[in-house]
Amino acid sequence: MNQQRIQIVQNILSANDAIADQNRQLLNKAGLFSINLMASPGAGKTSLIEQTVKNLCQDYRILVIDGDIATTFDADRAMAAGATAIQINTGGDCHLDAVMLNKALVQADLNQFDLLIVENVGNLVCPASFALGTFHNVLVASVPEGHDKPHKYPAMYRGVDCVLLNKIDLLPYVEFDVDFFRKGLEALNPNVELLMVSCRSGEGLENWFHWLRKKIGEFRTQNMV
Amino acid sequence: MNQQRIQIVQNILSANDAIADQNRQLLNKAGLFSINLMASPGAGKTSLIEQTVKNLCQDYRILVIDGDIATTFDADRAMAAGATAIQINTGGDCHLDAVMLNKALVQADLNQFDLLIVENVGNLVCPASFALGTFHNVLVASVPEGHDKPHKYPAMYRGVDCVLLNKIDLLPYVEFDVDFFRKGLEALNPNVELLMVSCRSGEGLENWFHWLRKKIGEFRTQNMV
Repeated sequence: MNQQRIQIVQNILSANDAIADQNRQLLNKAGLFSINLMASPGAGKTSLIEQTVKNLCQDYRILVIDGDIATTFDADRAMAAGATAIQINTGGDCHLDAVMLNKALVQADLNQFDLLIVENVGNLVCPASFALGTFHNVLVASVPEGHDKPHKYPAMYRGVDCVLLNKIDLLPYVEFDVDFFRKGLEALNPNVELLMVSCRSGEGLENWFHWLRKKIGEFRTQNMV
Repeated sequence: MNQQRIQIVQNILSANDAIADQNRQLLNKAGLFSINLMASPGAGKTSLIEQTVKNLCQDYRILVIDGDIATTFDADRAMAAGATAIQINTGGDCHLDAVMLNKALVQADLNQFDLLIVENVGNLVCPASFALGTFHNVLVASVPEGHDKPHKYPAMYRGVDCVLLNKIDLLPYVEFDVDFFRKGLEALNPNVELLMVSCRSGEGLENWFHWLRKKIGEFRTQNMV
């Protein structure tokens, strides 16, 4: 019975990958740079989106697709910040998959946007297994979660291109060993970018905006070739 | 295909429930009171276990069964605090299930213990769907996660008997509306116990120890009838 269950999971994942490829093609065709933003519940994905939209919306037309079990809180916040937003409610599902994203993508006129931010369901486990077809995977970690999280959630930390360590304004009030966190991360993912930020105070966010602008530039160069 | 997938999930869940019943019988037979402790990554489950073991180990013999994707960090901490601990590494699985717990239970001499704390994988979604056979479900929420979490993770908040709102020492440094959190929780789960605590400063923990002692007493009375 276990064998059969594993087989089915593999089928679901290959079906997901095929749709993720279609999403990637749709996004490339529209010249739309995209990131899949993942995190624990409450690490600060939506706050990061608010700050990002406010900072970049003069230069880029931004679409946010929000995944949540329930509510439209996050899409409402992205819209209030100045983005166009689409909410996906997964019902009970613990992650977005490529099919859900596809249904949202075909609703939008993708040519009207330069930057797509997909906000995944708050979860450090399941979203790591489901490719969406976005260009980069980005993780928002946060200081109050503790410095041991790369060790405890290796698949997530291994599969991302950029980690933002958010809530550094709380470093004076909690026990968090930045070196231990950094070493745990680098052991799993030596080429990852680590950015220390506070979405609340704004500290360090300029490095994130710089990273994003640079990656959008690289995408456009690659996409024109 | 969706239909087929749903069918399979239901079969897995009924199989899980059958094993959860076996676990419940094992625990009742041994007179062992038990809780299933759930939370987001980094909300403070392990810190709560450390504090609980230190406070109650004079009066109760405590067994901790720790579920994690990887590492033995949490079981090490529970042992250092004075408990007997068993670590379950789930590999990639995002939650404990009744079969995993059963494998741990049959390793231990359950008659040797008065209190079993099962620490689930850090995740606000998946553990809510898998009964383990424990006596109570307890959730550790935390202030930095934000006051909107009951709305966003309703299945988890609906299915628990007690919610500890941890890290109240950080209330002065973050935006957290305690009333909004409480109302969100009570709308889903009117009979739930809400306890405000800080595992770091110790504030409010005496209410948690009191709740636990009372529930152990109730279990013993019920179990003798």
